[in-house]
Amino acid sequence: MSAKLKPAARVAGNRQDVWTIINEAAAASPNQPIINMGQGFFGYNPPQFILNAAKQALDRVECNQYSPTRGRPRLRKALSEAYAPLWGRKLDPETEITITTGANEGMLSAFMAFIEPGDEVIVFEPFFDQYISNIEMPGGKIVYVPMHPPKEGGVKTLSAAEWTIDFNELEAAITPRTKMIVLNTPHNPVGKVYSKQELQKIANLCLKNEIIILSDEVYDRLFYVPFTRIATLSPEVEKITITVGSAGKNFYATGWRVGWLMGPANLIQYVAAAHTRICYSSVSPLQEACAIGFEQAEAEGFWDSCIQDMQGRMARFNEVWHELGVPYSEPEGGYFVMVNLSKVELPADYPFPPHVAERPRDFKLAWFLIQELGVAAIPPSEFYTEANAHIVEDYLRFAVCKPDDVLETAKERLRGLKKYIKQ
Amino acid sequence: MSAKLKPAARVAGNRQDVWTIINEAAAASPNQPIINMGQGFFGYNPPQFILNAAKQALDRVECNQYSPTRGRPRLRKALSEAYAPLWGRKLDPETEITITTGANEGMLSAFMAFIEPGDEVIVFEPFFDQYISNIEMPGGKIVYVPMHPPKEGGVKTLSAAEWTIDFNELEAAITPRTKMIVLNTPHNPVGKVYSKQELQKIANLCLKNEIIILSDEVYDRLFYVPFTRIATLSPEVEKITITVGSAGKNFYATGWRVGWLMGPANLIQYVAAAHTRICYSSVSPLQEACAIGFEQAEAEGFWDSCIQDMQGRMARFNEVWHELGVPYSEPEGGYFVMVNLSKVELPADYPFPPHVAERPRDFKLAWFLIQELGVAAIPPSEFYTEANAHIVEDYLRFAVCKPDDVLETAKERLRGLKKYIKQ
Repeated sequence: MSAKLKPAARVAGNRQDVWTIINEAAAASPNQPIINMGQGFFGYNPPQFILNAAKQALDRVECNQYSPTRGRPRLRKALSEAYAPLWGRKLDPETEITITTGANEGMLSAFMAFIEPGDEVIVFEPFFDQYISNIEMPGGKIVYVPMHPPKEGGVKTLSAAEWTIDFNELEAAITPRTKMIVLNTPHNPVGKVYSKQELQKIANLCLKNEIIILSDEVYDRLFYVPFTRIATLSPEVEKITITVGSAGKNFYATGWRVGWLMGPANLIQYVAAAHTRICYSSVSPLQEACAIGFEQAEAEGFWDSCIQDMQGRMARFNEVWHELGVPYSEPEGGYFVMVNLSKVELPADYPFPPHVAERPRDFKLAWFLIQELGVAAIPPSEFYTEANAHIVEDYLRFAVCKPDDVLETAKERLRGLKKYIKQ
Repeated sequence: MSAKLKPAARVAGNRQDVWTIINEAAAASPNQPIINMGQGFFGYNPPQFILNAAKQALDRVECNQYSPTRGRPRLRKALSEAYAPLWGRKLDPETEITITTGANEGMLSAFMAFIEPGDEVIVFEPFFDQYISNIEMPGGKIVYVPMHPPKEGGVKTLSAAEWTIDFNELEAAITPRTKMIVLNTPHNPVGKVYSKQELQKIANLCLKNEIIILSDEVYDRLFYVPFTRIATLSPEVEKITITVGSAGKNFYATGWRVGWLMGPANLIQYVAAAHTRICYSSVSPLQEACAIGFEQAEAEGFWDSCIQDMQGRMARFNEVWHELGVPYSEPEGGYFVMVNLSKVELPADYPFPPHVAERPRDFKLAWFLIQELGVAAIPPSEFYTEANAHIVEDYLRFAVCKPDDVLETAKERLRGLKKYIKQ
């Protein structure tokens, strides 16, 4: 290709990402069809009352045309009312909420709104991989702070709460150029729900150093221990916090691309301005359906059923690890479970392809499970920097938001691990 | 606000955009409800066969979850087949088509894919306003080349073909840093369909200087004269051309946010990579509906009906200008008409608010129509640089994609212009 047609550096890299590697491995496996416990999409539909709302919206002329760039007024009002009891006050739907094209484009909008080239953003490892390119797009520099798994994670099933931040490491990461910090609770992939005490420590550092907190709370309806939203710690913390939400995660509809950011008007206005420049506006009929979803969810008992349902799936799936004597981090929230497979002995002469052989052990574990057992999971070292990848090289991430028959087949297949496990 | 919380320069500007000014003017007008002929959204629904497809998609589990980041295979295949007769060959759905969150995010993805800070992009005036921020986001520099309206546009209704590019001006705008050129045909707001000869001249300059052509063809199903796609001029031109399409415009559903880019695999791969980083993936159930839409549209006679229908609306609306003796540019495509109101005498002492008074005459015309007649239209000087704004200061843009009763009420109200017209 002519030099003049060459791509910009931001897209020119050609390192294969984890999704591509896992999908290609799955396609090449002799165990077809693969049971996909990898990517976090739901294996079942949104509830009927929300689907009905979407269908009705499709019959309305105004629901098929551009929505206001900040989002449909009905959805912003419904969010304000649905979040009021969780927030302790009613957010202003005009100025404190803006709708985005999924949480992903919402977070990009937040980085585009505040990051100038050279500004630093603190990100905990493991991170959601899209954070990285989203921060780099406006020229931000990422400063990583690792979460540390429990020391006994290889031999004992412990709460995901045991994954911890070293607050000295966090404080040392802050510089005069630190503009934002990204928090994720309930956490993907760890399943940790940050405690109020941990959040208060993070918030204190951010207040002291005037750092904007971007709190990714897309799993906010799936918590199995008390869940604190960092924005609600105090009015001072609220003033520096932007909270991210997702209808895709809330309503089992990851393909709907409806998300939102909530926060003080003087921050949200710039997020909305960035969103206008990125997507102009977000999908109208599904925004309307989400509005109706939020209006009706409480009365439908939907939020309670979400928690019960997902806890049930989690418990059902994790039975297999108890059977195998394999420890995992007991999730406090979300739909992922991190399983520690240090006891699994991979055959010494196993023929891993070069692009897997050169990666940390979790990639080999993932490849082996796909090839030998027909179960796909995600190697979490992809969500650490190279220097820290070893921290999770014995773990794999499984998504349990799948129907019962998928969970049961996965378990049946995973029992095949038995012969590779040293007890 | 603390200096540390301040927004990035890219979103910090607070100049009111034309949409905000017009919407606020509309809200403040004594003539309620305002007849909105401003923004180009449809005043009627997508055809039933596409709405049915969307409703059926909502019942399918996989249609509510993440789509592949490049788009649903069924939609890419449907596009490949629907475009084959127009393209002269079948595009490879795997490598030559990528789905985006509306054409807008598609164009942003293209700029993000190829523009490094300081690279230049040639844009014709009048431009679609989102181009500007989308080019600036990756650090691109815009080089403007004006389209010139016909000299007699103030006294005679002439074809939109009479709006022309000065090819000397275009050639003079090219520098060694010119990386891309943005073309729009059928053109918004002018209604021009570039002739094959004009496209060939543009293409020759781009081939000679290795400039990527980004051809915004979102109105590609609405042409009233022969329409040439620049990518089809020759295999050489196709190699440097990315073509942009929009289901929102094709299917009367501007709120669906489904668009696509088509072009050579070695360019599309980087657009897709940028799209992954911006939105990850696009709305699934409506992608599926659009796939079915493209599969069925030809058999439904939909594309022919689109043209007939919109030509009918255009002719019906423009009757009022003939009655008034006011000239306009007869559109060759699209659903906008540029009307030349140089004959309208605004009262010398009319109380325009300061933010309108300081703008070119077309803003005053727009304000006057909203306040006095209750009809909203868009002042096109917003789509020129300040230096060239005078070129269109007598024009207003009207969108005719509105139901008959809206068109008739608009005409009735516009007849009130009679007393302000000097003949």
